[in-house]
Amino acid sequence: MTYAQSVLNGDRLALARLLTQVENNAPEGRSALIELFPSTGKAHLIGVTGAPGTGKSSLVNQLAMHYRKVEDKRIAIVAVDPSSPFTGGAVLGDRVRMRDLSGDPKVFIRSMATRGSLGGLAQSTAGMVQVFDAAGFDIVIIETVGAGQSEVDVARLAHTTLVVEAPGLGDDIQAIKAGILEIADILVVNKADRPGVENTEKALKSMLDLAHPTERVFQHHGSTMRTTAPAQPASSALMWIPPIQRTVSTEGKGIVELTEAIARHVVYLRQSGDWAVRERTHLEVELEALIRETLVNRFMENIPQGMYEDVLEKVIQRNVSPWEAMKILMKEK
Amino acid sequence: MTYAQSVLNGDRLALARLLTQVENNAPEGRSALIELFPSTGKAHLIGVTGAPGTGKSSLVNQLAMHYRKVEDKRIAIVAVDPSSPFTGGAVLGDRVRMRDLSGDPKVFIRSMATRGSLGGLAQSTAGMVQVFDAAGFDIVIIETVGAGQSEVDVARLAHTTLVVEAPGLGDDIQAIKAGILEIADILVVNKADRPGVENTEKALKSMLDLAHPTERVFQHHGSTMRTTAPAQPASSALMWIPPIQRTVSTEGKGIVELTEAIARHVVYLRQSGDWAVRERTHLEVELEALIRETLVNRFMENIPQGMYEDVLEKVIQRNVSPWEAMKILMKEK
Repeated sequence: MTYAQSVLNGDRLALARLLTQVENNAPEGRSALIELFPSTGKAHLIGVTGAPGTGKSSLVNQLAMHYRKVEDKRIAIVAVDPSSPFTGGAVLGDRVRMRDLSGDPKVFIRSMATRGSLGGLAQSTAGMVQVFDAAGFDIVIIETVGAGQSEVDVARLAHTTLVVEAPGLGDDIQAIKAGILEIADILVVNKADRPGVENTEKALKSMLDLAHPTERVFQHHGSTMRTTAPAQPASSALMWIPPIQRTVSTEGKGIVELTEAIARHVVYLRQSGDWAVRERTHLEVELEALIRETLVNRFMENIPQGMYEDVLEKVIQRNVSPWEAMKILMKEK
Repeated sequence: MTYAQSVLNGDRLALARLLTQVENNAPEGRSALIELFPSTGKAHLIGVTGAPGTGKSSLVNQLAMHYRKVEDKRIAIVAVDPSSPFTGGAVLGDRVRMRDLSGDPKVFIRSMATRGSLGGLAQSTAGMVQVFDAAGFDIVIIETVGAGQSEVDVARLAHTTLVVEAPGLGDDIQAIKAGILEIADILVVNKADRPGVENTEKALKSMLDLAHPTERVFQHHGSTMRTTAPAQPASSALMWIPPIQRTVSTEGKGIVELTEAIARHVVYLRQSGDWAVRERTHLEVELEALIRETLVNRFMENIPQGMYEDVLEKVIQRNVSPWEAMKILMKEK
């Protein structure tokens, strides 16, 4: 039996081994991903991102516990730690979480550090998410730190992206929020028992108003979904305005309301057709990353021994510019 | 006269226009970079990175003012804002800084938002830094937010990388620090008048001790340079242990001491040979990025009309996996 078949049969050890192969970009991982691919496309992928100090990990923990204990869903967590791009690591988060969720066969938690190469992170994350999806996990939570490009790439994998903020994280956080609003489906103000929560929420609200100036949102039972055609052009008749949810994840407060907001977002994605749009985007991005990687590998294999080093040496002596060196190496003259 | 010649002659308007062309990856920017390349390699490139809320921008402002007013250096600042990967923006920082530094002809400040494509940010930043270098700026400060992959790539451009922390930014910041130590040449604890500064410094110190366990650092006039051969293998007889500098950038406190630490790092870089190693790495990374981009562009141009879309459609229908699709498109079968 192949690893892929064992994974489809629910073998937890095979799953753990396959995830390692996928993370290491091993050939066995590749063939398993091909074999598993037709079984993917069922899981709800939730991205959770936010700056350090917002309490993301504890929030993810609470969400996972809710989905397990209240909704009896199978949950996988991929915690992406881009903080150590050189040596890897990031096991602390697992250990902390394991205390609450360990021993539960319907929970699987996996940390990964970033790979050295650009794009490698998003690619291995995509692979791991596909493995969990095929293995029958209902919800896959992808947790990332920060607001850099790699986090944005990872967020692009998700159907629903939660951006976590917290009161009192400083003044220039505003700059982050401006960008993060573009990837946020739900804004979470965690640590909402701290002073300054009103200010954080107010700042987020005014940024939302700036982002959606001409819209009148029809509020219904706490939903922020529009029920009339939007004033601005949109890809669908429905429009989603990111709601702001308060939580205190260390005490489990606001978690039920947050999962309700996530459930409303799924309804919105299905009704508007955005679910299919996002699926398409994920696969498009993944294909492009694979092509990039293969192009570079093939190029390096086909360059005559020593030529790359010779040309690079001329660049370092500042006799040839990097642009000219690229043309020489690619024989464009 | 070409833009490049005007820039070499000190024409500020030509400089501004050229920077835009380089940022937009325009053909004129390309040829100017080739023309300017032999004039590069003189500036000291200082990277400044840190999480939101650490007061990085204000610190960069103070550093720039010191270098202008005390050392009469020509200063350029490239503020990279990866927070808005989709629409660009990031002008607020400029405006705030401009109040202190505007009108000074030996200062040039430029903000850039991230480009959509992976790797695009590091590449355009590298180009802009080369323009400033050739234009005769003595110091180019590259300011970035956060700790993601793109920030690491940008930090790789610099000779000296400052990682800025601040007290009270939360508990899971520890995870960030583990990775950031690998890129930090100098650790700055900004907002050092805030409560918790001792804890922040203590945490950084114990992480430094973990990173350099067998070394006994010879402290001399506040210098952290080793004067004896290291116990661990190293590329040079000298070894640099990142010093921790306290600052209160809003009041200008600790700035002189910080610039002294930066000056010591330059001495270390020159004496150890690491300056040349870093120059080599920058150019290597830049060449690789150019090759990647060109490979992808050429690949997309050579694919028959409609073929990419057809194969992608099969992936979306889950009939063909992304890996198989890549092989079809690259005709590997």
